[in-house]
Amino acid sequence: MAESKQVFKKVVLAYSGGLDTSVIVRWLQETYNCEVVTFTADLGQGEEVEPARAKAEALGVKEIYIEDLREEFVRDFVFPMFRANAIYEGEYLLGTSIARPLIAKRLIDIANKTGADAISHGATGKGNDQVRFELGAYALKPGVHVIAPWREWDLNSRQKLLDYCEQHDIKVEKKKGKSPYSMDANLLHISYEGEVLEDPWAEAEEDMWRWSVAPEQAPDTPAELTLTYRKGDIVAIDGKEMAAHEVLEYLNKIGGAHGVGRIDIVENRYVGMKSRGCYETPGGTIMLRAHRAIESITLDREVAHLKDSLMPRYAETIYNGYWWSPERKAMQALIDDTQEPVNGDVRLKLYKGNVIVLGRRSDDSLFDEKVATFEDDAGAYDQKDAAGFIKLNALRLRIAASKGRKF
Amino acid sequence: MAESKQVFKKVVLAYSGGLDTSVIVRWLQETYNCEVVTFTADLGQGEEVEPARAKAEALGVKEIYIEDLREEFVRDFVFPMFRANAIYEGEYLLGTSIARPLIAKRLIDIANKTGADAISHGATGKGNDQVRFELGAYALKPGVHVIAPWREWDLNSRQKLLDYCEQHDIKVEKKKGKSPYSMDANLLHISYEGEVLEDPWAEAEEDMWRWSVAPEQAPDTPAELTLTYRKGDIVAIDGKEMAAHEVLEYLNKIGGAHGVGRIDIVENRYVGMKSRGCYETPGGTIMLRAHRAIESITLDREVAHLKDSLMPRYAETIYNGYWWSPERKAMQALIDDTQEPVNGDVRLKLYKGNVIVLGRRSDDSLFDEKVATFEDDAGAYDQKDAAGFIKLNALRLRIAASKGRKF
Amino acid sequence: MAESKQVFKKVVLAYSGGLDTSVIVRWLQETYNCEVVTFTADLGQGEEVEPARAKAEALGVKEIYIEDLREEFVRDFVFPMFRANAIYEGEYLLGTSIARPLIAKRLIDIANKTGADAISHGATGKGNDQVRFELGAYALKPGVHVIAPWREWDLNSRQKLLDYCEQHDIKVEKKKGKSPYSMDANLLHISYEGEVLEDPWAEAEEDMWRWSVAPEQAPDTPAELTLTYRKGDIVAIDGKEMAAHEVLEYLNKIGGAHGVGRIDIVENRYVGMKSRGCYETPGGTIMLRAHRAIESITLDREVAHLKDSLMPRYAETIYNGYWWSPERKAMQALIDDTQEPVNGDVRLKLYKGNVIVLGRRSDDSLFDEKVATFEDDAGAYDQKDAAGFIKLNALRLRIAASKGRKF
Amino acid sequence: MAESKQVFKKVVLAYSGGLDTSVIVRWLQETYNCEVVTFTADLGQGEEVEPARAKAEALGVKEIYIEDLREEFVRDFVFPMFRANAIYEGEYLLGTSIARPLIAKRLIDIANKTGADAISHGATGKGNDQVRFELGAYALKPGVHVIAPWREWDLNSRQKLLDYCEQHDIKVEKKKGKSPYSMDANLLHISYEGEVLEDPWAEAEEDMWRWSVAPEQAPDTPAELTLTYRKGDIVAIDGKEMAAHEVLEYLNKIGGAHGVGRIDIVENRYVGMKSRGCYETPGGTIMLRAHRAIESITLDREVAHLKDSLMPRYAETIYNGYWWSPERKAMQALIDDTQEPVNGDVRLKLYKGNVIVLGRRSDDSLFDEKVATFEDDAGAYDQKDAAGFIKLNALRLRIAASKGRKF
Repeated sequence: MAESKQVFKKVVLAYSGGLDTSVIVRWLQETYNCEVVTFTADLGQGEEVEPARAKAEALGVKEIYIEDLREEFVRDFVFPMFRANAIYEGEYLLGTSIARPLIAKRLIDIANKTGADAISHGATGKGNDQVRFELGAYALKPGVHVIAPWREWDLNSRQKLLDYCEQHDIKVEKKKGKSPYSMDANLLHISYEGEVLEDPWAEAEEDMWRWSVAPEQAPDTPAELTLTYRKGDIVAIDGKEMAAHEVLEYLNKIGGAHGVGRIDIVENRYVGMKSRGCYETPGGTIMLRAHRAIESITLDREVAHLKDSLMPRYAETIYNGYWWSPERKAMQALIDDTQEPVNGDVRLKLYKGNVIVLGRRSDDSLFDEKVATFEDDAGAYDQKDAAGFIKLNALRLRIAASKGRKF
Repeated sequence: MAESKQVFKKVVLAYSGGLDTSVIVRWLQETYNCEVVTFTADLGQGEEVEPARAKAEALGVKEIYIEDLREEFVRDFVFPMFRANAIYEGEYLLGTSIARPLIAKRLIDIANKTGADAISHGATGKGNDQVRFELGAYALKPGVHVIAPWREWDLNSRQKLLDYCEQHDIKVEKKKGKSPYSMDANLLHISYEGEVLEDPWAEAEEDMWRWSVAPEQAPDTPAELTLTYRKGDIVAIDGKEMAAHEVLEYLNKIGGAHGVGRIDIVENRYVGMKSRGCYETPGGTIMLRAHRAIESITLDREVAHLKDSLMPRYAETIYNGYWWSPERKAMQALIDDTQEPVNGDVRLKLYKGNVIVLGRRSDDSLFDEKVATFEDDAGAYDQKDAAGFIKLNALRLRIAASKGRKF
Repeated sequence: MAESKQVFKKVVLAYSGGLDTSVIVRWLQETYNCEVVTFTADLGQGEEVEPARAKAEALGVKEIYIEDLREEFVRDFVFPMFRANAIYEGEYLLGTSIARPLIAKRLIDIANKTGADAISHGATGKGNDQVRFELGAYALKPGVHVIAPWREWDLNSRQKLLDYCEQHDIKVEKKKGKSPYSMDANLLHISYEGEVLEDPWAEAEEDMWRWSVAPEQAPDTPAELTLTYRKGDIVAIDGKEMAAHEVLEYLNKIGGAHGVGRIDIVENRYVGMKSRGCYETPGGTIMLRAHRAIESITLDREVAHLKDSLMPRYAETIYNGYWWSPERKAMQALIDDTQEPVNGDVRLKLYKGNVIVLGRRSDDSLFDEKVATFEDDAGAYDQKDAAGFIKLNALRLRIAASKGRKF
Repeated sequence: MAESKQVFKKVVLAYSGGLDTSVIVRWLQETYNCEVVTFTADLGQGEEVEPARAKAEALGVKEIYIEDLREEFVRDFVFPMFRANAIYEGEYLLGTSIARPLIAKRLIDIANKTGADAISHGATGKGNDQVRFELGAYALKPGVHVIAPWREWDLNSRQKLLDYCEQHDIKVEKKKGKSPYSMDANLLHISYEGEVLEDPWAEAEEDMWRWSVAPEQAPDTPAELTLTYRKGDIVAIDGKEMAAHEVLEYLNKIGGAHGVGRIDIVENRYVGMKSRGCYETPGGTIMLRAHRAIESITLDREVAHLKDSLMPRYAETIYNGYWWSPERKAMQALIDDTQEPVNGDVRLKLYKGNVIVLGRRSDDSLFDEKVATFEDDAGAYDQKDAAGFIKLNALRLRIAASKGRKF
């Protein structure tokens, strides 16, 4: 490998504290004879990040960065994305995709601060995450080097990793109830891949899911809640103002308790293969439906349709790892321009997996009862206008038909 | 009105047998001194159509057409539309929109057959249906005249219609439990508008819904079923081959029993206003999710994304009434071209409003376990290729960043 | 007509001083017994606007607005549109379309200032301009009334207009060399419709064209010029800073002298018919090519492609008259976001109808000679990366082909 | 390199007979100890292909394929692409891109026939052509191996290639007037890259161009010609029926003689860099304009706009090398569906670089003089319909404005 012949002085590693990235610390030190800086972020994955410090210290790491990025994550990444109603391939709410750009950004920030000449991550060579980390890193620091151990080494099984630990005196925690699945979690979602899921016909096992109860196990009594939007973002729940990450934490909790947000899909990865994944996105599932509801009364029709026509491209851009790109920035400019009037309240009911819209209202509502009514509208709308509207819209079809065209 | 001065000999009316269209029969006879031909179709709306015969006869109608169009409707309209995963504004499955083109077509067929020079319908001047009927009619018979009584007369309240009946000796059935809502039904859905729904903040009343139980009232035991697809269409359920309309009838029944398919939305009408509507689409809701599931393993990624990018336009085209248009036909050519390999089975669970995908399989599956596996893939995929893939995809970003661009 | 029964106190009319709009002044006064305010704008149409004052006075008009809007027109309408490389149906540079929103805006401004309750214009009921004027007016002042005499009166021939003048004592100027074509002009273009052009097979006559010489008559010596861009707009020509309208005036003059910018097309009007039009757009033709040239070295690839994919919709939006709409505004936000780095010089040659790009340069250029060179690039680009890039991009095709798919 | 360790028995090489591919023959024989099969195609590049036979024989090649693919190339690749009005980045007519899929197909056909296990080509690692060859090859034969010598060897300069020839006793023809540019030619175009063009500000030298005279050198007398279309393809010129490749040969000749079809652009390559290229596409330039002209009277408006909105993606798909892909096939289905009525004649004038449309006519014309006329239309169009049309199209804007929205 061209890369492995290179010399690096200092490498910033996205470090979880788990087996894989602990091995990577040591492997980097040995392979490149370099200093390793660890970076561990709390993105709301639901595990303590502080324990990573002692583990990194035990591996001889001197510069250790541990950061709570939950608010930045939701405010600057999740919320802007939800303004677009982004869904990948009709189902996936981009929970993993949206966390990667922030990690890439912090890796580069820390590289700049510590004078590191490379970054490293624990993503495999088959997945999307390597692409997302690396595109972000290159976009933010074009001369940076990226070390992707999984593409270089031959430690390609759990047993080999454990052997490596033993040979290199790395302490391995024995977690009880360790999931056999390949998982990723942050405030937006938790994902599962691998194992039985590698057969798309096989049903996912109930004990795989971690964030939500099954609809069958959810309470018999629905929950109702009211979300308040300002410029397309949720700023309060049931009248209580909250920070962005508090909103998502709250919705995850209540959504998960009511069995909301599970999906089981086969998706198309950017690297060219199909893969089966299961996702729990309780808060995101609520937010998508609610955002559409508040937009339904506050957005102009053509603006809404324009957003819908651009959405698949926007979602694909994020899925493929191009958050830090001029095209994402340009699309965001359009999306954000539309959200100025997206203000108001959405009332929802959660019940055994269902997110049911009960009502929506807004001072910026474009819903006009006087015009829309089935009752007498006192002249707000002249029904006779419709005749001309239809006649001219039909004109091209009539001319074509009169000249013999068949449809 | 220019139209009302015109002379028509014979008019084909889309006739339901209800109050409104019965008044229209008489009003047409009187206003235009013309013969009226009635056309009543069974599209699966769940009401007998045969009683319309006696009512039409009582109004002096001599040419009465009553037709069972259920199979044609599902096979030639609903199924082709579902190949596109069509959704309007993120929520609406186009249940009313897709029935109008078939009615327009039959009105024109009958006009041609009976030598009528005009058609007529009972849609109001504020809605989308007038547009859909008339665009279809003009596209299929460019010289036809269309009489839209609601845009002409002043019988703009229920009381005036009842008075008209009394004055003109039209027998009015007193239906018990008559819904106060403006409703439309066919095999794909039933819709509700008007009344309390005219306030988008007001919750829909439980006793409004007719086709589905509330999720709360659905059975505690889920139903499981397996749908078999051939070229993008469902051809069998649980191994039993069915005609298109039988498929939809079956799915409506089982879906409705499990609380599947209710939505409550504010939508943007083609005529320029927002309106609040509630819809029950049990079978369609199942079909959309299942179709995406079978496509997820059988469609190429770029084809799937191409379809997704075109879908909003396709849905809008149908919503706005342009089924009979060269642009719909051209988009359909693209969509149908992609469905050749969309074959296989989808296994689903229905539970209290949820449609849960349990598995999907196909002889045409593009899911490649050998490539996708987290385990050793025996060389099916060379992870080192990813390095070059990322490097070249990043090149434009690196060049830009190295020249000072900020993202 | 519903409208003609209405009472208006004061009407602002877009007044050219010509026969048609002079008749309209009197017709409005008589039909509606209202006061007429005239508005005449210099948009660079090449005719004096001041003479309109005396004509309006002669018709008894008391409030007369005559304004030089050339700079506002080019700076705030033409230039923003050219940032998008907007072309309608592959050929038309939207010269008429882009002037209408400004006129609509000024009509409404003056209506607000003078307390008028209606506006009026001289566009016919068959064309796009009525739509553009009226959509703009309604968007800017939703309660305004619009009087479109051509849709109301029966003065539907030149002779009837002349008769009306005689009956109403309106002085008609006999212009020598009056064109028989229906024409429209402003700084961006001049257009011709009607007469012999109504047969799309008939060749336009040479003496129809007014702003440009035929390529055959253009000088044998080419002209060369250098345009300087700042944020997507031209700010200097051959090193001389110019105001927006001076830029366009200059380019029209030099372009016209070299036979640049004639087109002869059949276009699809928003009102549903095809129409044949000839256009001279010398400056615009130069600007489109030059803007693409400066973008070619300064825009990121995906941004450029995103703009291209959105362009047809943007052009259609303007063509159809929706400049003053939230969807145009949202698209403009995207377009403008991309123009920050569109700075630099384009060198051009004009010769007998040709606009030839000779070179382009920019401090913001993304062209990287080191990477692009056919010579040794000293490691700027590792050709081996291409192998992985291709392999992964081919993966979905290989999997599909290996499972028997035929392309 | 992983590839170079592999063993191949027989390799099919795209062989031009020139220096580079002659070196490749020998290099393949030596590096892989394999048999080389040469394939040389006449795509209308303007050079004899038969001399390649003796050269291949001299290199010890036993299986030599020399084919005239001109008709297949134009009929099955160029013409279908022109139905879409495809242009890449607003300027480039895809002359090189469209030839690669056919070469890839024949390489694979021959590999199948001769039992070869690999193919090879002479494209460099920086360009688009490697991608196009290889994507095509993998799509058509997923297990094939591809050898790209330019990505493997170190013969990265002309001098090293010449040295290699001397060492390996390969006869090198000294061509007089050999162009210093990197060129590619086929019936659709000839391209130039490299040398002075690597500076985008530098003007191309006049003696670089080979297929067309400069507009300045073109005849003073214009040429006129009439093209006849059938289903979107040209089938006759001036009334004379011609095969597809004869059409293009004729148009190249007459276009080149009149200075038509030169462009000088900076384009964005799929591999991530910008590159400067000059192209001569005389026939293609004529065909694009003429095709738009015939479509302008025969295509429905919405179909035309749908095609325009899809075109950038279609062009990008071909540019990037995905001709043999399901997404290109699906888009082609849409495009071809629209071309049924694209029949008729276009009359053109060529003059010193200009392609001027003089007229267009068709039995399938949708141009309706009765409706479009400025004269009295005898009721074909009711101008009063426009009032309702505008009113309803303005409704959403009026409601928004009345609620305080600013545009």
